[in-house]
Amino acid sequence: MPYRAPVKDMLFNMQELAGLQALNQIPEFADFDLDTAQAVLEECAKLNQDIIAPLNFESDKNPSYLKDGQVFTSPGFKQAFRQFAEGGWQGLQHPTAFGGQGMPKTIGAACGEMMNSASISFALCPLLTDGAIEALLTAGSEEQRNTFIPKLIDGSWTGTMNLTEPQAGSDLALVRTRAEPQPDGTYKIFGTKIFITYGDHDMADNIIHLVLARVAGAPEGVKGISLFIVPKFLVNADGSLGARNDAHCVSIEHKMGIKASPTAVLQFGDKGGAIGTLVGQENRGLEYMFIMMNAARFGVGVQGIAIAERAYQKAVAYARDRVQSRPVDGSVAGSAAIIHHPDVRRMLMTMRALTEGCRAMASVAAAAYDAAHYHPDAETRKQNQAFYEFMVPLVKGYSTEMSLEVTDLGVQVHGGMGFIEETGAAQHYRDAKILTIYEGTTAIQANDLVGRKTSRDGGQMARAFAGQIEATEALLAQRDSAAAKSVLKRLSAARQAYLDAVDFISAQGKGNPNAAYAGSVPYLMLAGNLVAGWQLARSLLVAEDKLTAGEDTAFMSAKIATARFYAEHILARAGGLRDAIVEGADSVTAMPLDAF
Amino acid sequence: MPYRAPVKDMLFNMQELAGLQALNQIPEFADFDLDTAQAVLEECAKLNQDIIAPLNFESDKNPSYLKDGQVFTSPGFKQAFRQFAEGGWQGLQHPTAFGGQGMPKTIGAACGEMMNSASISFALCPLLTDGAIEALLTAGSEEQRNTFIPKLIDGSWTGTMNLTEPQAGSDLALVRTRAEPQPDGTYKIFGTKIFITYGDHDMADNIIHLVLARVAGAPEGVKGISLFIVPKFLVNADGSLGARNDAHCVSIEHKMGIKASPTAVLQFGDKGGAIGTLVGQENRGLEYMFIMMNAARFGVGVQGIAIAERAYQKAVAYARDRVQSRPVDGSVAGSAAIIHHPDVRRMLMTMRALTEGCRAMASVAAAAYDAAHYHPDAETRKQNQAFYEFMVPLVKGYSTEMSLEVTDLGVQVHGGMGFIEETGAAQHYRDAKILTIYEGTTAIQANDLVGRKTSRDGGQMARAFAGQIEATEALLAQRDSAAAKSVLKRLSAARQAYLDAVDFISAQGKGNPNAAYAGSVPYLMLAGNLVAGWQLARSLLVAEDKLTAGEDTAFMSAKIATARFYAEHILARAGGLRDAIVEGADSVTAMPLDAF
Repeated sequence: MPYRAPVKDMLFNMQELAGLQALNQIPEFADFDLDTAQAVLEECAKLNQDIIAPLNFESDKNPSYLKDGQVFTSPGFKQAFRQFAEGGWQGLQHPTAFGGQGMPKTIGAACGEMMNSASISFALCPLLTDGAIEALLTAGSEEQRNTFIPKLIDGSWTGTMNLTEPQAGSDLALVRTRAEPQPDGTYKIFGTKIFITYGDHDMADNIIHLVLARVAGAPEGVKGISLFIVPKFLVNADGSLGARNDAHCVSIEHKMGIKASPTAVLQFGDKGGAIGTLVGQENRGLEYMFIMMNAARFGVGVQGIAIAERAYQKAVAYARDRVQSRPVDGSVAGSAAIIHHPDVRRMLMTMRALTEGCRAMASVAAAAYDAAHYHPDAETRKQNQAFYEFMVPLVKGYSTEMSLEVTDLGVQVHGGMGFIEETGAAQHYRDAKILTIYEGTTAIQANDLVGRKTSRDGGQMARAFAGQIEATEALLAQRDSAAAKSVLKRLSAARQAYLDAVDFISAQGKGNPNAAYAGSVPYLMLAGNLVAGWQLARSLLVAEDKLTAGEDTAFMSAKIATARFYAEHILARAGGLRDAIVEGADSVTAMPLDAF
Repeated sequence: MPYRAPVKDMLFNMQELAGLQALNQIPEFADFDLDTAQAVLEECAKLNQDIIAPLNFESDKNPSYLKDGQVFTSPGFKQAFRQFAEGGWQGLQHPTAFGGQGMPKTIGAACGEMMNSASISFALCPLLTDGAIEALLTAGSEEQRNTFIPKLIDGSWTGTMNLTEPQAGSDLALVRTRAEPQPDGTYKIFGTKIFITYGDHDMADNIIHLVLARVAGAPEGVKGISLFIVPKFLVNADGSLGARNDAHCVSIEHKMGIKASPTAVLQFGDKGGAIGTLVGQENRGLEYMFIMMNAARFGVGVQGIAIAERAYQKAVAYARDRVQSRPVDGSVAGSAAIIHHPDVRRMLMTMRALTEGCRAMASVAAAAYDAAHYHPDAETRKQNQAFYEFMVPLVKGYSTEMSLEVTDLGVQVHGGMGFIEETGAAQHYRDAKILTIYEGTTAIQANDLVGRKTSRDGGQMARAFAGQIEATEALLAQRDSAAAKSVLKRLSAARQAYLDAVDFISAQGKGNPNAAYAGSVPYLMLAGNLVAGWQLARSLLVAEDKLTAGEDTAFMSAKIATARFYAEHILARAGGLRDAIVEGADSVTAMPLDAF
């Protein structure tokens, strides 16, 4: 099933929701107007549609494997990675000073979506490399930046994030990998890291592991963790590759999905110690790692949107093709393509609405990131930073949870064929399930939303969000269309439900943390649902105007229909979530532990 | 991970909700009081816990396979099937006249749940055989019944249902397999059937295929379909096995889950014609097949409950064991088992509440089936039949959809480990997805609920249901406990939401079928949610009384906590479903087909 990148929808979001024109006024982004964005997206679409997407299904059947201590990737991955690297795609959002293209995240996120629609397994390698680049840009020494970043950007090398250990998953305080200072200023690293995505592979000449470890005598817990660069091959002063470092892949996991992406167990220091160099200062490793992680969290949210889009396209194609039963409205005389059946339409609309809603949300978040980093005005930067930080758990948590619903519906539309692996719908269902887990589970995102983003300032930022939504409601209220009225009704009710939840959660504070956190995931789902629905409501306002102006009527009509469906079917869930959060907190923890 | 059958909860349902005592008054069930039920369940638990459950994980890694035209099942299946057969479990619900035990479905359903918790892949073989027995009991000739049923009951032979063809899935009007009458009264069968569960295997001496086919000259569509017995080996007059019939397994499917269950493509008549005998009358095949299918639909609903229970038990065990992070309420000084974290509790409670709610619903439905078939009073039989028929799509549709949510949460509780196949949680996630598809997708169940069960009598039966719920509300209103008050509030709101949906759907009628069917699945989910919540509300009334009497306080307290959680978190979804059905119908079909 070929993949078609939704370039038009992406450009609509950039232009009409995310304010690409305004970003274009920022000196750093002076080159990136809508025409350039379109050209980039179309070029990116070609690579992903023609080169990467066709590899996805076969790579699931022929996953990466470990042989004689070396991981070999799925057929075609190595060649595709060369094309990816040569096209300059790794450097898309990175500084031109290091060979990157310095594009706004607003464009980069759309490109990222395409690559993940094409193949999440493939796209994970660049995603992790992006994280490594960001960490080095922020905390690396000049020498480290100059040594590693250009090679990471040109695709000669790739990067990894080494956090997890068997006993330390979400809880990094339990990290035990240790680093012993050496007289020459380097460190010897000893320990085992698990779940290391692309921890070994054959697509690049070197792998730059960024590793969390404890220096002897460091404080207990997360305040005693430092970050180290541990390359697979040591790097000589002239940048050439030196000896093999004592960092080895000892096994790779047998996973339910994303099978082509090698998930490695890495052993550091079994042969005397892996040589590592400290990034930044000792004991600040977690802080630096969070830089990588925040970028990666947003990226994983985009993966959710990406796989949802792919599943949607596949389901639509099947629904147009598969003939089965007479439509209930008699619109077709005999058996008809199943897209004529109302429940199939409901499933497809649900898939589409969730995908477009989350895409719009991510696009707006990306623009906030760009403004937060590059806008000339400090106050604007600050506001955008706050907005972006509030959005990260929503983009990650809500977009990935919705991708489970969408990929489930994708299988369901296929009926019995969906359960057969040859059809391909099942792969999306299996692949998607990792998205709600890695880079922080949905619960971890929700804890972030409740703790750092809501309780800490007494709900101030969370309420400010609702204020912006109210402004959109005021615009909707000026419209006469049935669609606008319906969207207004649901958006307003969902915002009120959200405000009730914010009030409840911020009122619990330290006295009753169980009650606040009992509703953390429902709160995340409510907030994500609301923000995605809000962006579609904004889309509807634009689309109605364009329609009146006779512009692109098919696209604009579809946007209105999608926004309305989202409001009536997805935003409609808000009340139930509110009730569970506000009136159901006690029953979450009422059962004694031994009664389970 | 060992499986422990929830015998206590099953007995509670039978005694307190399903009225086993009343069934026991029916002459046919005079032997089956609560003590007998308990003895049967405990014996059944042993077989499933000790013999079948341990095979499940390995069988996923070593699925059934086809070699030289013969299917070989997973290691241990053949021996386990012998023990199952020798224990008399296949005959549990079948007439003693044919060697069965004549037990009520109320007990049989609980046993079925256990076997499916142990292994859905294994349990599918008996499930299909049950269907074949029921069809022969209803429509088979005396000779057919005497020839086949005893052998099916004693496990010498097994049964299959042959409906689907490549072009005929949900739409059986498209069946093309043909039957040519022979001078000796038999028929020659020609055609290809797909998705035939246990269409071939090595666990029994013969396989009795029940096959839908068209006799030459039969009317078009579903009114021209007849049902045939086509044994793998022909059966001689003395009951011994004769020649190999021309019915062959030509391939088995590579599926996402239930991999140990062979899903066969069967070719009939490639070597001159498979010999079949007509069941009942020509052209009434679909009617007979629906007998099998209704039994199987209920059985698949039970599979949903079963896999949810297994996933729940696994998640609880992991959550007790896995140590990660400090609890937010400071109840443990350092890192604690994750069951201390509120969101993990929320996930486990959701899993538990959905499972127990659906189990209670299925138990009550099973009792209605028993009364509908055997109660001495005709009017009581009729009422119970109507109740049961209304319940079948709910048990099938809602219990299987909830099993997707539960198995998803089961993986989620395990975090990254959940995505690794060795852990076993992923298998449940993969296995469960077939349940919303086979024996009629959720949409097919929902169409049944909307069309035959709601619209046809103008919503009369559907409203009568709500009346029964109102009676439970009246009892809740007499209670002072916070739990009863909270459950009352949610149950009443959900019932009102349901009634709005019933009114809307029955008002659409023939004028606007798209609007009625656009909300069909949300309506099924609303009704299923309500009925499961209602049964837990009834459970709460019982449990409060028992608690006051000091009986079994731990179990009763847990039941109250579970019922309350269900009401506050699951019943709370009802309003959103109502809104989608009643106010969102048009947006389901508003998008032009070419805009997808």
